[in-house]
Amino acid sequence: MKATILHGTRDVRVEEVDDPTIQRPTDALVRVTAACVCGSDLWPYRGINEVKEPRRIGHEFVGIVEEVGSGVRSLRPGDFVIAPFLFSDNTCPHCQVGMQSACQHGGGYGGPDTEGIMVDGGQGEYVRVPLADGTLVATREVPDDSLVPSLLTLSDVMGTGWHAAVAAGVRKGDTVVVVGDGAVGLCGVIAAARMGAERVVAMSRHESRQKLATHFGATDIVAARGEEGEAAVMDLTDGVGADAVLECVGTGEAMTTAIAVARPGATVGYVGVPHGVELPIGTMFRRNIGVGGGVAPVRQYLPQLRDDVLSGAIDPGAVFDLELPLSEVAEAYAAMDERRAIKSLVRP
Amino acid sequence: MKATILHGTRDVRVEEVDDPTIQRPTDALVRVTAACVCGSDLWPYRGINEVKEPRRIGHEFVGIVEEVGSGVRSLRPGDFVIAPFLFSDNTCPHCQVGMQSACQHGGGYGGPDTEGIMVDGGQGEYVRVPLADGTLVATREVPDDSLVPSLLTLSDVMGTGWHAAVAAGVRKGDTVVVVGDGAVGLCGVIAAARMGAERVVAMSRHESRQKLATHFGATDIVAARGEEGEAAVMDLTDGVGADAVLECVGTGEAMTTAIAVARPGATVGYVGVPHGVELPIGTMFRRNIGVGGGVAPVRQYLPQLRDDVLSGAIDPGAVFDLELPLSEVAEAYAAMDERRAIKSLVRP
Repeated sequence: MKATILHGTRDVRVEEVDDPTIQRPTDALVRVTAACVCGSDLWPYRGINEVKEPRRIGHEFVGIVEEVGSGVRSLRPGDFVIAPFLFSDNTCPHCQVGMQSACQHGGGYGGPDTEGIMVDGGQGEYVRVPLADGTLVATREVPDDSLVPSLLTLSDVMGTGWHAAVAAGVRKGDTVVVVGDGAVGLCGVIAAARMGAERVVAMSRHESRQKLATHFGATDIVAARGEEGEAAVMDLTDGVGADAVLECVGTGEAMTTAIAVARPGATVGYVGVPHGVELPIGTMFRRNIGVGGGVAPVRQYLPQLRDDVLSGAIDPGAVFDLELPLSEVAEAYAAMDERRAIKSLVRP
Repeated sequence: MKATILHGTRDVRVEEVDDPTIQRPTDALVRVTAACVCGSDLWPYRGINEVKEPRRIGHEFVGIVEEVGSGVRSLRPGDFVIAPFLFSDNTCPHCQVGMQSACQHGGGYGGPDTEGIMVDGGQGEYVRVPLADGTLVATREVPDDSLVPSLLTLSDVMGTGWHAAVAAGVRKGDTVVVVGDGAVGLCGVIAAARMGAERVVAMSRHESRQKLATHFGATDIVAARGEEGEAAVMDLTDGVGADAVLECVGTGEAMTTAIAVARPGATVGYVGVPHGVELPIGTMFRRNIGVGGGVAPVRQYLPQLRDDVLSGAIDPGAVFDLELPLSEVAEAYAAMDERRAIKSLVRP
C-alpha cells in the first residue's frame, strides 16, 4: 500500500510499504478514506523536533473497516469509523474517567507499539488499529461524503478544541477568549459557542480565519497581539477579563496572553503542545488563575460530537481549505507550513 | 492600644501605638478578642521576605464591633465578627463571582491603604476594618468561648484549606491527597472529608499532626516524603493516583509531589504562597494535570463555614495547640517557627 513517510526537514513522501495485517485479536484493519495533516505534524516537518530516520506519519483519519480480529465485538467490515489520534482500550481506570489519552494500554500511530509491532501512520491507504473496540467510533450508516470533513475533525482538532473548553470550564453565559486561530483554536470557538458562551472573543489577525471564527460563533475579533491584544480584551470586558480562556497555540507568548486576559478565578484551558512555555506561578497565585488541559482525550468526546456533526449542529469541517489526493501530501504539508492553508485534507 | 510590631528577623514585639479611629463612613472599629499567627507571617519573621522597617503584623482575628461609620448598614456595636484576612467591598465584579481576594477596592492589614491611611494589623487590641459591610461576617449571638478558636480559623486557614479543595475540584467519593500537615493542610483534610471524599490521604511525618489529621477525617497517612512518599501514594491507589490533590505548603518539593500523585485529568489545588515553585508544564500537559488556586477568597466561604462551626459539623479550632496572652506574642511566633506549635492563638 501507499503511505506517507517523513524523511527529514520539509521532506515528506508517499511510498510503497507493506500492507498491514491483523496482528492481534483486538485489531481492526481500516481502509482510510480521508486523512489530514495536524499542526503537531509540522513540528518534526519543520525540524523543530528532530527526525533521526525516515518514519511513518499522520494520526487523523476516517475510513471503512476492512477486517476485524476475532476478539472485536462492536465493529464489522463495512462500518464507517472515526479514529481518535490515540488508540485506547476504553476500559482501564483512566479511560473510565474519560482520560483515554492516558490509557494504560494505549498508544499512538506511526511507529512500533510496546511489543515492537508496527502501527501504521494515518496518512496512508490502510491502518492497523489496535484495541479497535475501545478506539474506533462508528456511524450507524456510511455518511454522505459532504459530512466526511467534519467527521474527520473529530479525530483530533474538534475534540482538542472541545477539550480546551472543557478544561477552561466554559459555562452558559460566559465570556470566553480563544487565543490561536489555527484549526484547533477555530474548533475552540465552535466548542465555546456550543456550550452556551454568550460572548466568544477570537484573537486572530488573518482575515480568512476571522471570517471562519465568526461563522463558528465568535462575537468579537481581536486582531492585535501581545500587550496590545491583552489591553483590547480587557477593554472589551470592562477591565474584568474573561470567564474562561482557551490557549490553542502552545507558545510562551500565547500562554502569557491567555493568563493576562483571564479574570481572577478563571481557568486557562490549554491544548497546544507547549514549546517554550513557562507558567508564571506568582501571577497565577496572586490572581487565582488556573491552568488545565493537555493531550486531549478526544475518544471521550467523540460520540457526542459525532451526533452533533450528523445533526448539523456543528460543521467543523469548514476548517479544511485544501483538499488533495494522497499522492500530493507534500503540498498538503507545504501549504500548512507556509500558512497558505489552515488545514489540509488528503484522500488516498 | 497595644499592637504587635515586627522589627526584623525573629524580632517581634508588643508596643503601644495610637488607637485607631473611624476614618471613613464604611469603617468599623473592632476590639480583637482573639488573633493568631499565620504561616505566612513566618516568611518575614524568618527574614525570607525582607523587613526594611518596623511594621504592624497579623491578619487573622475575631472580635467585637466597638463602633461603626455612618455608612455601615449590616453591623452594630456589640456584634461578634470574623474578619477575613483581606478586606473587600463584596460588590465589585470579582467579589460578585466569589473572588473577594481580588476585590477591586480591597486590601490587606498591617500597612497604609491606597490613600495612605493606616490599616491596623490583626495582632493587636483594636483594628480599623475598611469596607466593613463587605468584609466582616457576624454571628447572630456572641458565641460561646469554646467556639472562638474554630471561628478564628475561618479568618484564614480553614477558608484557605477549603479553597484548596474547591480549586482541586473535590467531589463525593473521591480519593484526595493532602500535601502539607500545617494548619492549612489539616484544614484541607477537614474540607475534603466534609465534601464527601471517600478516602483522604494526609502526607505527614509528625505524629501529633498525623493524629489531628485522622481526627479531622484522614483515612490514610503517608509519612514518607519525596519519591518514596509519591510511590506510597501510588501504591495506595493501585497505581492510578488521586482524583484531587491539595498542595498546602508552597515549596517546589511539595508541588512536585502533588503533581506526581495526581491521576491524569486531576487538578492540584494549591494555596501555599509559592516559594521556588516551577510548574513542569511538559509533565502537566502529557498527563492532563491541572493546577488551580491562589490567594483564598475566604470571605466567599465564611458564612457557610461559620454555620458548619456553629452546628459542630467541623472543629478546625483543634489546630491551635498553643494559646498565649498578646503580651507573649514573641513566644507565639517562636513556637511556630521552631515547629513546637502547629498554630498559636493570642488573646489581647
